Amino acid sequence: MTGPEIDRLIQLLAKLPGLGPRSARRAALHLLKKREALMTPLAQAIGRAAEAIRTCSVCGNLDTTDPCAVCADTRRDAALICVVEDVADLWALERGRVFAGGYHVLGGTLSALDGVGPEDLNIAGLMRRARNGVVREVILATNATVDGQTTAHYLADRLAEIEGIKVSRLAHGVPVGGELDYLDEGTLAAALKARRAM
Amino acid sequence: MTGPEIDRLIQLLAKLPGLGPRSARRAALHLLKKREALMTPLAQAIGRAAEAIRTCSVCGNLDTTDPCAVCADTRRDAALICVVEDVADLWALERGRVFAGGYHVLGGTLSALDGVGPEDLNIAGLMRRARNGVVREVILATNATVDGQTTAHYLADRLAEIEGIKVSRLAHGVPVGGELDYLDEGTLAAALKARRAM
Repeated sequence: MTGPEIDRLIQLLAKLPGLGPRSARRAALHLLKKREALMTPLAQAIGRAAEAIRTCSVCGNLDTTDPCAVCADTRRDAALICVVEDVADLWALERGRVFAGGYHVLGGTLSALDGVGPEDLNIAGLMRRARNGVVREVILATNATVDGQTTAHYLADRLAEIEGIKVSRLAHGVPVGGELDYLDEGTLAAALKARRAM
Repeated sequence: MTGPEIDRLIQLLAKLPGLGPRSARRAALHLLKKREALMTPLAQAIGRAAEAIRTCSVCGNLDTTDPCAVCADTRRDAALICVVEDVADLWALERGRVFAGGYHVLGGTLSALDGVGPEDLNIAGLMRRARNGVVREVILATNATVDGQTTAHYLADRLAEIEGIKVSRLAHGVPVGGELDYLDEGTLAAALKARRAM
């Protein structure tokens, strides 16, 4: 029905998260209709970003510089490291502008099911950084999933070996704007247990 | 937080239908992580498709050849023309493999609200094709929306001028697999009115 170039474009677009075969077709058609305004600029933008992208050798973030903009920013507190599973989590925290320390991207979680062990994650790098004499606190901000929490416990054990390092984790509780009626019992129990005086 | 190349990539991805700012970020991150396997091939595929794409001078389809693969296919019945609003509709009918005639893409519908008149659509081309002596039937397959049906009525009036041309439209009724309980009254009324003997 269409040329091989279009079929190939649809196939590749369908590999993006959030786009299935149907929406990939719609996206391809949208691109084809906006050749000058969108299609050519997008091809260039992807090509340029692909060339420019680097993995930060300090924290594992993806950026166009190495060390990344976060690690290179001297106004940030180098004594604080926030450990996250994925670059997406780092970006989410940065969007919130709530944290002004450094990050460390693990690149996943420990998972017995998927055969992911400590050597598969960026843990050696974290231990090295935690021993550099500057770091005072490591905040474990892995996801509140079983694998995320297992990984946090494992890291807390490993970091306990290093003297003078405080290890903390994100608070559990009711999300801001959340309704109790829609929350699971685990969250409610955690929020109750961690209640604070008003 | 990230380099300008990445910001630009996210901005352009967010312009694709089906991707908002949040999913564009996820898509960009997915691309950055799969640089060799997906990112570079996608940039090339978009670039190549942008270069190769043509609008068919006969029917208005988008393809890498002009006339398009549908118009160039001599096994198809040139006496039948199916009029659709958009290339996406043509692709949908072709996916169904239910029609073996030619198409004509209007490029939209008449719309008093949006100021779209007959001269803004590919109607002159349709009238020319309908007069070529080969065409025997024009099937109006515009959407079953107010604008789509208005356009169909307008085209039926125009085509009535040409002698020997049959004008038809798609049947209305219960979608295959559809449940009556979930259908609107308009569809139910149309399905009842167009009932057929079993």
